[in-house]
Amino acid sequence: MSKYLVISSDGHAGPPSDVYREYLEERYRIRFDEHQALIASMRVTNDAFIEEWDEETGDHDMLAGYDPAVRDGMLDKEGVAAEVLFPDADVLGTGRLASSPFGSGLASGRDGDPETVKAGARAHTRWLADFCRTNPHRRIGVAVVPVTAGVAEAVAEVHAAADMGLRGVMMPTRWFDEPAYLDPMYDPFWAACAETGLVLHTHSGAGPSDYPLGPGFLSIYASEAYWWAARPFWVLLLSGVFERHPKLMYSIAENGAWWVPDQLKRMDEKWVGGHNTRKFGDAFKQDMTMKPSEYVARNCFFAASTPGADEIDRRYEIGIGNLLWGNDLPHPEGTYPHTREWIATRFGAVPEDETAQILGLNAAALYRVDTAALADLVDRIGPTPEDVHGKIAV
Amino acid sequence: MSKYLVISSDGHAGPPSDVYREYLEERYRIRFDEHQALIASMRVTNDAFIEEWDEETGDHDMLAGYDPAVRDGMLDKEGVAAEVLFPDADVLGTGRLASSPFGSGLASGRDGDPETVKAGARAHTRWLADFCRTNPHRRIGVAVVPVTAGVAEAVAEVHAAADMGLRGVMMPTRWFDEPAYLDPMYDPFWAACAETGLVLHTHSGAGPSDYPLGPGFLSIYASEAYWWAARPFWVLLLSGVFERHPKLMYSIAENGAWWVPDQLKRMDEKWVGGHNTRKFGDAFKQDMTMKPSEYVARNCFFAASTPGADEIDRRYEIGIGNLLWGNDLPHPEGTYPHTREWIATRFGAVPEDETAQILGLNAAALYRVDTAALADLVDRIGPTPEDVHGKIAV
Repeated sequence: MSKYLVISSDGHAGPPSDVYREYLEERYRIRFDEHQALIASMRVTNDAFIEEWDEETGDHDMLAGYDPAVRDGMLDKEGVAAEVLFPDADVLGTGRLASSPFGSGLASGRDGDPETVKAGARAHTRWLADFCRTNPHRRIGVAVVPVTAGVAEAVAEVHAAADMGLRGVMMPTRWFDEPAYLDPMYDPFWAACAETGLVLHTHSGAGPSDYPLGPGFLSIYASEAYWWAARPFWVLLLSGVFERHPKLMYSIAENGAWWVPDQLKRMDEKWVGGHNTRKFGDAFKQDMTMKPSEYVARNCFFAASTPGADEIDRRYEIGIGNLLWGNDLPHPEGTYPHTREWIATRFGAVPEDETAQILGLNAAALYRVDTAALADLVDRIGPTPEDVHGKIAV
Repeated sequence: MSKYLVISSDGHAGPPSDVYREYLEERYRIRFDEHQALIASMRVTNDAFIEEWDEETGDHDMLAGYDPAVRDGMLDKEGVAAEVLFPDADVLGTGRLASSPFGSGLASGRDGDPETVKAGARAHTRWLADFCRTNPHRRIGVAVVPVTAGVAEAVAEVHAAADMGLRGVMMPTRWFDEPAYLDPMYDPFWAACAETGLVLHTHSGAGPSDYPLGPGFLSIYASEAYWWAARPFWVLLLSGVFERHPKLMYSIAENGAWWVPDQLKRMDEKWVGGHNTRKFGDAFKQDMTMKPSEYVARNCFFAASTPGADEIDRRYEIGIGNLLWGNDLPHPEGTYPHTREWIATRFGAVPEDETAQILGLNAAALYRVDTAALADLVDRIGPTPEDVHGKIAV
């Protein structure tokens, strides 16, 4: 193996407000200006962090979020050949905004009027399609589709996204007061994703709404965040969505994967029928002909972004073919601008073929990446096995 | 060591409706009859299971839930010297009711009028105090205190429970639309528990309310149940309740403990300040002067009930002094009526001193059990190290 094909399964892109404004249908623009002013006024900044971040990245204006040349330069520096693009390139803590209009991105449309949220999502999706066209092999665009605000429109958006060359769909991670994803009303949407081959995504982000600001709020939020973001995973899985739509592929982005083995073990145990569930009879098998872990192996992917030591340790239980790496560019909790070093730290002792799968080959297969078209680029920027594993025999 | 002192940290007791009726203040009795008829009409039964269960236990009338002599006979047979008593001795699947009135028990008062829920809780608590008096060293009673329905009354109930000889308090596991437990409005309640030495509890039970019956409902419910039941744990911990009330002891009942090490690791990491949280500065330290795991070691107990292999494997990370065993009598997901065999299966390879702590000594210290008063009983019924470990050298 000469160089690793590295594909980030978790990148974020978004332009400044004035660009988004142009992509919004005209009747939403005044509301957009008001909304942007509101969220700008609510942003909390951390001056010490801004200084540190600007020095580290040199990107004071968040050009990484939307300037093709700047983005490509950063990807080159990071050794990343291609990336999956979600919305919301904001760098929290700096107060700099670049989020999909009306909270339609990672905020799952919380508190938004469904009509404006859908308009915001359309604006982002259309901007993103244009952005991806600037380097179509390198950019794997994910359309923002607020399915909780209307299934029929969402189905149309999936087809429109496929026509625009996008390769995935992100639905709201939280359903708030709308029907949960076990509701069969969503079936046409799952079917549309399966039919077009667009990968379905949820991305961590929207947190709890059932407790007030108070002591420990941020710590509680951060501790629970993975769980809120994982709910759609087991709701889809256990309600039989992958039974009914065997070609639907689903990736859970930036939500770790350390929790997967423990969850799957317990789901399987219930399905098989252990001591703890005997009072329920066969109820757990009703909507699934296979064990939960079997659907997961076939249909689910964990775009754990920057994996921690636990994801690496548990990679066989998660599934070597189901774990995707990412660098979360340009978010500071990701590894940018030190991705090469982080890869070496995490994958140093991981065998080469497994490293190749997790760093890029799994994503290449999932998103049908034209790897031949990226070969020269990989040859130029990809990390070598020696870069990653040093002198360790793996 | 001659015999193990076995204390179940998770038992359930409750009498039939006509007994509860007598303990209810008169003005609630008609509403109680209506409520009982309603829940009886909603019960799902599983005939095959009923037959199996009745044959296994011989307890067709659920006498185990409230008859002192029957209960003691069962405990003797199980080798259990003392037990912590929660409400709701119902055996789900048989349709037999014995739950704390108006859903005031494990259902966290869901859908109930707060006044009737409080009346139901008082009725259960007073019945339980009488039941515990039938064998006060053996029965460790936990008062039901719906603190979300009123803090001042809850404080009075804590003091009343202490006066009645009860040794713990169970609050609702879910707060539904009331303020979450991070709200400082609850401080007088934490203070009352700490001051009286009554152990605070939450118990698994009340599940999600944000999705409808539909495909996979039961599987999803069961997969998420641990999480809903664990929420109060990190809400108390991370909002600094144990910082402000260092003498408050808290036990999370029948919710496993396999999830504890992964959670604590991530909480500690945030508190210390790792890469992922640098954008937040010192926000995670605001309400805590120690690492989360340090409060847990001091203040928190995991009454995992019947431990699984994972709890046993992870016992050092959970804390040998913080893990409590239980048999969930008389619930069929517990180990009754085969507790001796289950103990041998789970603890066979666990060193004797650790087995002694988890099976009973931790609970004895936590609930200030008079172990001298139980010595003869233990000598008569307690399992021997050879019963548990057979010929394995531990």
